[in-house]
Amino acid sequence: MARFADDFVADLREWLAIPSIGVDPAHRDDVAASAEWLAAALRRDGWPDVRVWSDSGALPAVYACLPAADPDAPTVLVYGHHDVQPVDPVEQWQHPPFEGTLVGEELFGRGASDDKGQVAMHLLGVKAHLAAMGADRPSVTIKLFVEGEEESGSPNLARLLDDHRADLACDLVVFTDTPLYARDAPTVCTGQRGNYAAEVVFTGGSADVHSGRAGGSVPNPATAIARLVAALHDDEGRVRLPGFYADVVEPTEAERADYAALPFDEDVWLANSGGARALSGEAGWTTLERVWVRPTAEVNGITGGYTGPGLKTIVPARAAVKLSFRLVPDQEPERIAEALREFVAANTPPGLHAEVIPRGNGTPPYAMPVDHPAVRAVKESLEAAFDQPVRFSRTGGSGPAAVLRRDLGVPVVYLGATLPDDRIHAPNERVVVPLLLRGAEAAARLWRLLPERLS
Amino acid sequence: MARFADDFVADLREWLAIPSIGVDPAHRDDVAASAEWLAAALRRDGWPDVRVWSDSGALPAVYACLPAADPDAPTVLVYGHHDVQPVDPVEQWQHPPFEGTLVGEELFGRGASDDKGQVAMHLLGVKAHLAAMGADRPSVTIKLFVEGEEESGSPNLARLLDDHRADLACDLVVFTDTPLYARDAPTVCTGQRGNYAAEVVFTGGSADVHSGRAGGSVPNPATAIARLVAALHDDEGRVRLPGFYADVVEPTEAERADYAALPFDEDVWLANSGGARALSGEAGWTTLERVWVRPTAEVNGITGGYTGPGLKTIVPARAAVKLSFRLVPDQEPERIAEALREFVAANTPPGLHAEVIPRGNGTPPYAMPVDHPAVRAVKESLEAAFDQPVRFSRTGGSGPAAVLRRDLGVPVVYLGATLPDDRIHAPNERVVVPLLLRGAEAAARLWRLLPERLS
Repeated sequence: MARFADDFVADLREWLAIPSIGVDPAHRDDVAASAEWLAAALRRDGWPDVRVWSDSGALPAVYACLPAADPDAPTVLVYGHHDVQPVDPVEQWQHPPFEGTLVGEELFGRGASDDKGQVAMHLLGVKAHLAAMGADRPSVTIKLFVEGEEESGSPNLARLLDDHRADLACDLVVFTDTPLYARDAPTVCTGQRGNYAAEVVFTGGSADVHSGRAGGSVPNPATAIARLVAALHDDEGRVRLPGFYADVVEPTEAERADYAALPFDEDVWLANSGGARALSGEAGWTTLERVWVRPTAEVNGITGGYTGPGLKTIVPARAAVKLSFRLVPDQEPERIAEALREFVAANTPPGLHAEVIPRGNGTPPYAMPVDHPAVRAVKESLEAAFDQPVRFSRTGGSGPAAVLRRDLGVPVVYLGATLPDDRIHAPNERVVVPLLLRGAEAAARLWRLLPERLS
Repeated sequence: MARFADDFVADLREWLAIPSIGVDPAHRDDVAASAEWLAAALRRDGWPDVRVWSDSGALPAVYACLPAADPDAPTVLVYGHHDVQPVDPVEQWQHPPFEGTLVGEELFGRGASDDKGQVAMHLLGVKAHLAAMGADRPSVTIKLFVEGEEESGSPNLARLLDDHRADLACDLVVFTDTPLYARDAPTVCTGQRGNYAAEVVFTGGSADVHSGRAGGSVPNPATAIARLVAALHDDEGRVRLPGFYADVVEPTEAERADYAALPFDEDVWLANSGGARALSGEAGWTTLERVWVRPTAEVNGITGGYTGPGLKTIVPARAAVKLSFRLVPDQEPERIAEALREFVAANTPPGLHAEVIPRGNGTPPYAMPVDHPAVRAVKESLEAAFDQPVRFSRTGGSGPAAVLRRDLGVPVVYLGATLPDDRIHAPNERVVVPLLLRGAEAAARLWRLLPERLS
């Protein structure tokens, strides 16, 4: 892989220089330029069919296809994204976010890890695969689908998949937007949590009222919203929405054993969790299980009454809380939405008006059985590339894997080679270049294994 | 009283035109001008000893003394204030806040009710008293003390009282900053609630963290602050700070009977409570009791995490709540402060750092026994002026009566003639002029009754 490394970094730096911040309308042209950059890179690499899709109401996505030598070989669709997170607070960056700065083995820049680096890893993986095979066509038909709206929650993905159904037809999706567990503990990710978010607003009167005038005689929406939040969990840290756990599929004993065997450093976990001071969570589960295979209810924000400096002795007219629920298979966002509405109705005190405002439709959770042949093939490929045993992991974040599964009708496996401490979505995002090279090696091997494994 | 009415309104309008917003440093000169206006008015009325005090670190206060004809007559100190609340949101005023607009019987303007109108009522009361007696000296020595910092919580009052101990010596304080119960139900106020306010801040890590990365594994300060608030009350609406009720003196059966006999219109109460939709509060007490004689814990403001538009899936690093406790005799703010610290310590989950930030030292509550001779004299004076039976009431707000009691060492009685729906502290503050004239008549009678009643 070393012979490709210099070009790989030089190319990736070029791509990282394009500030394709999809959530920011001011960067719309940059998202388009980023798509064009990727399309040009693919054409340069000899991919015969490369297209930039600017339809379906979506920011530009890139599609490419490299047919297998054998027309009967399976087709694999590699999913990734080329839009990146905003860079605020920009003053906390130690290197410019849109240059791509190589310091030793680390390449710093927005998108280096999430997700341009991992997409670039796949371009390299295809070159390596062809070189290893001594062929100009791969063992499987490789399609690449790199969207431009992942950081916006992929709002138009379903339409894109529908509008390009024929092009995207495949036997397997390889989803490339998740990390290894750790540098010294490479893993196969087998699932992501889903997400459902909503804001709950309690309104009392039409105006704040002096707490000397009315305090003690009318309901306080801020107190009520606090009670609603307090009622969200029981003493064991379990979520109390009605039926919340009804559809939860627990991990297998084999998965739990694998998670337990991973090295876990509490101090590192806390440091990577915004400098938290202690672990906490649902009773009966380890920290990794709490984040990977257990659903949660989190307060993302709460506000009510006077929040400026000093003092204002009022009974507020209004209070609101932003809640989000991380979901695990087979919880469905629509059912959680319904359960939340029921829960709010049951916890609205007399005299307050309650409103539940959904923030999007939510993202379904996704997980693959660890004994699926494609998962086993990914594991074997990573073990060969990293030259060590590879365990299973999941990730607590969310992504469109379940949508791809549903709309394309095929299994989705994860292949990633980044790290949980790459500071994605934060200042000083970086990627560890040698890990991407190993990931490319794993991909190269995977393309070789799949025809037999999927047969 | 009618012969004084035109001058009374004209004078008060002049005073209302001075925007003496004490809490706003930009209006410092206006507070001084307001004090000078009052001093000039007193001198014009023939008060022989009038002074503006600009010492003790306080905004200007006005002191005046009108000695009794009889050197052995008791001395009464009338307390009021000439600073006013800010006028935001100014666009909601139907008349300019600093003009004094007479519409029928109502005079609109900031300070019309709270408290310039009531101070002016006393100037008129003295004139009426002298006219009724056909004398140029009153039956009691009348001292007037009108401070400029009441709306700021009277932070320098204790120093003022200490620095002017000899001037302020008296046998009784008549406190003039409380309303009648209703226009058709005049009452003697016999007490005010106290207040203690503090902010509680919970801090987890040093930065917000992505809820996919860490959600479920570390404590959420916003959830924890909500649980703290939820734990503040039991199911009966009682406050759960340790020892919170230990010093509470319950009202007498006679007081409760008087409160129960007052006309109470739930719709009016709700409309006057910011348009609240339902009554609520501590079990076992009526609405008036809940506001007048029962202590409370209120959330004045709560904030944590992301509160902007849309969605941000984070575990916040920090959350805070502004709490205030209305207190009743004999609760002491210092003991409530200590109880709050204990309560927060007992309700801080592992992994969060708690901080309790007091907002001032609090205001002690105050109440007078209803059978005190001075209270009976006020009642009798109001009954004569209003020509109807007068019951007892209290007010849920707070003021420095307890500080005057403590530092001057004499009883404090309340004489006010404003209304609870005068919209003090809100847009469109007004006062009902005929009620002030009745109040002046009551004061005139009180000065006549007191020499005998206090002997």
